[in-house]
Amino acid sequence: MIRVVVLGLGNVGTHLSTAFVKSDLVQLVQVYNRSARPVEDALYRIPFTNKLHDLADADVYLLCISDDQIHEVATQLSKVDGLIAHTSGTVAMEQIPRRSRRGVFYPLQSFSKGIDIDFSKVPVCIEAEEDDDLKLLSQLGNSLSDQVVAISSEQRKKLHLGAVISNNFVNYLYQVAAAYLEENELDFQLLQPLIEETARKLNDLSPLEAQTGPAKRNDQQTIKNHLHLLSDSPHQHLYELMTDAIRTTYGKKL
Amino acid sequence: MIRVVVLGLGNVGTHLSTAFVKSDLVQLVQVYNRSARPVEDALYRIPFTNKLHDLADADVYLLCISDDQIHEVATQLSKVDGLIAHTSGTVAMEQIPRRSRRGVFYPLQSFSKGIDIDFSKVPVCIEAEEDDDLKLLSQLGNSLSDQVVAISSEQRKKLHLGAVISNNFVNYLYQVAAAYLEENELDFQLLQPLIEETARKLNDLSPLEAQTGPAKRNDQQTIKNHLHLLSDSPHQHLYELMTDAIRTTYGKKL
Repeated sequence: MIRVVVLGLGNVGTHLSTAFVKSDLVQLVQVYNRSARPVEDALYRIPFTNKLHDLADADVYLLCISDDQIHEVATQLSKVDGLIAHTSGTVAMEQIPRRSRRGVFYPLQSFSKGIDIDFSKVPVCIEAEEDDDLKLLSQLGNSLSDQVVAISSEQRKKLHLGAVISNNFVNYLYQVAAAYLEENELDFQLLQPLIEETARKLNDLSPLEAQTGPAKRNDQQTIKNHLHLLSDSPHQHLYELMTDAIRTTYGKKL
Repeated sequence: MIRVVVLGLGNVGTHLSTAFVKSDLVQLVQVYNRSARPVEDALYRIPFTNKLHDLADADVYLLCISDDQIHEVATQLSKVDGLIAHTSGTVAMEQIPRRSRRGVFYPLQSFSKGIDIDFSKVPVCIEAEEDDDLKLLSQLGNSLSDQVVAISSEQRKKLHLGAVISNNFVNYLYQVAAAYLEENELDFQLLQPLIEETARKLNDLSPLEAQTGPAKRNDQQTIKNHLHLLSDSPHQHLYELMTDAIRTTYGKKL
């Protein structure tokens, strides 16, 4: 059994803690949160503290706190014997002081309150200085997920940028579409099967192969009609930019 | 049984024909294609023609051809008794000559060659001039799908614009992320669970509620790091534009 203390009960900490409770390979010995106790049923019986000097003995201390607190909280953990790993996509491992055993345990997924995640499909990106610590994080990752990959801090930052584009920016486009349909009294949920299929399709096709639509075909009549529909919209410029970018991509390939 | 002739065996025509063959409520009496016979096993036994003057008798003639051919092909069908419906998201019903019974049967999904689609989840948007014809298209739609909605040509164009944003533009962002990761020797498939969850989540949350990330949090350090990572990239401008747009959306809400 790997003994784990989770520090921080935001979305990442809560989802990870709940997943560890279900695992036979992990013992969640304590959860720490600066303020409130956990309210989830699954975590109710786990020992709780809001004092950093009261942490239990553990093999791994997982920092599930905001990026800008990682250095400060890790510094306060200088006396623990276990491995200290943060869970951020962007913060370098070196933000944890070198006098500690240090590492990274980054689950590559977007967690939302109240929405269950199948952890077996969440890639876990790990990093550590010592081979034994990397092995420990690998075992911890495998207790939840089918996919554990060792990635350096530099590469992890790049992966996180890819995640921001594929998740945050994509979700913003959903916002634009939803707002436009709502203004026109159309149900955004009509697009849900298309949206899910657009994502699912990437299991079989690269995004370059999967591209369709008027911009790729350079269907000028449809593009003109769409720009006309958006003539009073703040999103006309975005439409032009995306359309030009797609045209350029496929124009170059002709 | 509704007797159907499908005209055109591109992606839409092939997927629709294959789905009709499986339906007990529809008899696919003939497929027309300008050039080649269908090669799919499921369509091999369906009577085939490449001559518009040789069309079989049917209740519905479904035009699954490119937008700019709809008017011309429909004009050549002036002698058929059945209902003529096109399957385009953008073309007005009136592009089919008024001397014909005319309608629209628009399946709101992105079809790719060789990738199966569960038609029961594909919304079918229908339109017709006569009540009986609308009823016929509704029955035809229900033979495949759980969701059939009557939508005017004007509203359908707007829905199609929403689809372009949510599918074509989103897929372009996947391209940008994939190209960036590939350049940096990272596997784009690591993002696949995140991409699918970003789409799936919209069943439970509006895109406004689902937004996360550095732009929403106005996390200036991460944004600065990302812009630095993209300093030699043609996509730096896109990153700035999307980030500013998200910041503006949530800044206004503070």
